[in-house]
Amino acid sequence: MSAKLSRRRAITLAGAGVAGVAGVAAGAGALVRGGAEHASADQGAAAGAVPFHGEHQAGITTPAQDRLHFVAFDVVTKDRARLVELLGEWTAAAARMTAGKDAGVIGAVGGVPEAPPDDTGEALGLPPSQLTLTVGFGPTLFRDARGRDRFGLADRRPAALVDLPHFAGDALRPEISGGDLCVQACANDPQVAVHAIRNLARIGMGVVSVRWSQLGFGRTSSTSTGQATPRNLFGFKDGTANLKAEDGGLLREHLWVQPGDGPDWMTGGSYLVTRKIRMLVETWDRSSLVEQEQIVGRAKGSGAPLGRGDEFDEPDFAAKGDDGQPVIAETSHVRLAHPDANDGARLLRRGYNFVDGSDGLGRLDAGLFFIAYQRDPRKQFVPIQTRLARNDAMNEYLRHVSSGIFACPPGVRDGGDHWGRALFG
Amino acid sequence: MSAKLSRRRAITLAGAGVAGVAGVAAGAGALVRGGAEHASADQGAAAGAVPFHGEHQAGITTPAQDRLHFVAFDVVTKDRARLVELLGEWTAAAARMTAGKDAGVIGAVGGVPEAPPDDTGEALGLPPSQLTLTVGFGPTLFRDARGRDRFGLADRRPAALVDLPHFAGDALRPEISGGDLCVQACANDPQVAVHAIRNLARIGMGVVSVRWSQLGFGRTSSTSTGQATPRNLFGFKDGTANLKAEDGGLLREHLWVQPGDGPDWMTGGSYLVTRKIRMLVETWDRSSLVEQEQIVGRAKGSGAPLGRGDEFDEPDFAAKGDDGQPVIAETSHVRLAHPDANDGARLLRRGYNFVDGSDGLGRLDAGLFFIAYQRDPRKQFVPIQTRLARNDAMNEYLRHVSSGIFACPPGVRDGGDHWGRALFG
Repeated sequence: MSAKLSRRRAITLAGAGVAGVAGVAAGAGALVRGGAEHASADQGAAAGAVPFHGEHQAGITTPAQDRLHFVAFDVVTKDRARLVELLGEWTAAAARMTAGKDAGVIGAVGGVPEAPPDDTGEALGLPPSQLTLTVGFGPTLFRDARGRDRFGLADRRPAALVDLPHFAGDALRPEISGGDLCVQACANDPQVAVHAIRNLARIGMGVVSVRWSQLGFGRTSSTSTGQATPRNLFGFKDGTANLKAEDGGLLREHLWVQPGDGPDWMTGGSYLVTRKIRMLVETWDRSSLVEQEQIVGRAKGSGAPLGRGDEFDEPDFAAKGDDGQPVIAETSHVRLAHPDANDGARLLRRGYNFVDGSDGLGRLDAGLFFIAYQRDPRKQFVPIQTRLARNDAMNEYLRHVSSGIFACPPGVRDGGDHWGRALFG
Repeated sequence: MSAKLSRRRAITLAGAGVAGVAGVAAGAGALVRGGAEHASADQGAAAGAVPFHGEHQAGITTPAQDRLHFVAFDVVTKDRARLVELLGEWTAAAARMTAGKDAGVIGAVGGVPEAPPDDTGEALGLPPSQLTLTVGFGPTLFRDARGRDRFGLADRRPAALVDLPHFAGDALRPEISGGDLCVQACANDPQVAVHAIRNLARIGMGVVSVRWSQLGFGRTSSTSTGQATPRNLFGFKDGTANLKAEDGGLLREHLWVQPGDGPDWMTGGSYLVTRKIRMLVETWDRSSLVEQEQIVGRAKGSGAPLGRGDEFDEPDFAAKGDDGQPVIAETSHVRLAHPDANDGARLLRRGYNFVDGSDGLGRLDAGLFFIAYQRDPRKQFVPIQTRLARNDAMNEYLRHVSSGIFACPPGVRDGGDHWGRALFG
């Protein structure tokens, strides 16, 4: 915004001041979020901006930020054109907010005082905080639960966007599962992530409705070799063997939908599976260190596979102890989740811890909001989870209460492109 | 821990290694949380430690940290001695954790592998992050809902620890209100705050049970003149006129229980009122800027009182606009909450924003977890809230769903003192 425009706005605002008082708008122009330059040098990279446009959507291989606000929407309109229009509006708002700007061009304190602001204001003065916004399309967008082709998209549904099967032990709550659309907001400041989702919901009023949403903290996987492996609420390092941004060839093999995988609109995209996994931490906390380590298959302190010394050592699944038993138990999590046990299948995980208060039974309602991206869930999440659900010793301490699957299209190109353009085009 | 001890522990651990494999414990000694020195220079003050001992409890005038985990407990034992013993154990754990150490002396990965660890491990490697832990005692600890004197404390209940009256519009849910004990954990890293509460709950198993808990982010009040005023989820600056740590004389008048206020065990303490206030943000977002500003009584951008230019200008409640109406409406929040309207009564607020997912009706379950400390709720929170509940134009957008009141004793002195010693002594 030029100094001239800024001044003009201030004058306009002053003239329209509340109850005729000019003071209201003093300095208002200066308070519109200014973008990446807001991040001062000493705030560092964690406060900076992540580019919104590109070949792939940001928020997948982006080094995992520290906070999450995930939302699933139901589409409440039957009007295809209105839905496409919203996706365009959302894209513009997402591009602005990830750059650290207000959701709308007028902002929280500009424009006509008699109109609702086009930004809600709680992020005023906050830097971009590495906000990423990643969109996905659920199976019910293509055909609803009653089999209706709601928006003429039924023949564009990817075969890989399967309805997830029932896994052993699933205790899913339908009201916090599924969804026609999803947006994953990740940032290093929860207020920035919450602001972004709230403004998308605001913009979508009458077209979409919030189905469920989830806050998370303390990313439980690193997605870049530059990040230390964080710990989950069992106190263990999690995601040591994760796919990482630097794994070029592996990302083509396991993460990004390739030309020929089909449909074309998904080339360069990825499939997202979410699982809200309640962890029975009180029960876990009463189990012994040795039991915890045998269940996980790693040392609690170092994160090293049992029998090895360093976190990043490859597990030795053949090793046996003095008692003739495998050092890494057959039912351990690390063995069952390892690519060796899954025909080489791998996932890019970027889950978050959650605590949603207490459960009314004297326990914390806490656990892991699992997020995994992949090229084809039929070959990756589904067989891996089938095996884990049957045999993982950790299941005694877990309850899967929410599940979602979404097709995340490729990145938005600069100029005229928007979320879902190739799908609806 | 000396190098010698550290080495001895490593050897012990190695000898007791899982399935006879020594690698498990390699480096475990180095992974015990080491305290404040863990915070490297470039992590800065936000990662450092706040002193636990002192005249007053930390976490009240401490510059508000950015994250909250608040918990209320029910006492489930009838054994007074066991409860007192727990308060001693809690105090020791709190002193350790606020210094950035494990909850117990053995830690998450030390000791006998056949025993449960005395720390849960998810904060391993994290700095103190300015963690504060603040304890309070609820009315039901002194006499339960059926009038029974459970622990011989009935005659020690402060008169100021009133049962809060019903306020107009209250929609309280009993299961997330009240509690015999509370602990407020504030930190600059949510994982550190969650770890602290979770370990106190673990230590208290069989003596206390989690009644309710609440996560919060983006402190909504500054409690020090060095902090910028943050914004609540209505997008407005909140807490501009808050009591602050630097207000020496005002703190004696409004915050700390003074000698003679009675009972003696509360001298140097403060009374805490919590209110979980759901904010109907979707409705708010449809109201105009001018309406929002008239309801609040401040400009959304600058935070200045209407008719003034700067956030910290005193509101001019007498000023009238061209139309003869007050510039700051009679029903505005700033007018009704101001000391001038409340016989000079003031509060030290240190609330947090919350988003607890969605409400099942297509809306975010979001709002303010209000926290206020004061010398006497009968003269401060109760009359202020009575006035607000009747007249505040903001009520249309608010629902009070949880309420709590707690007597927070003075600080723990170094050496032999513990939470509740003067109360139970």
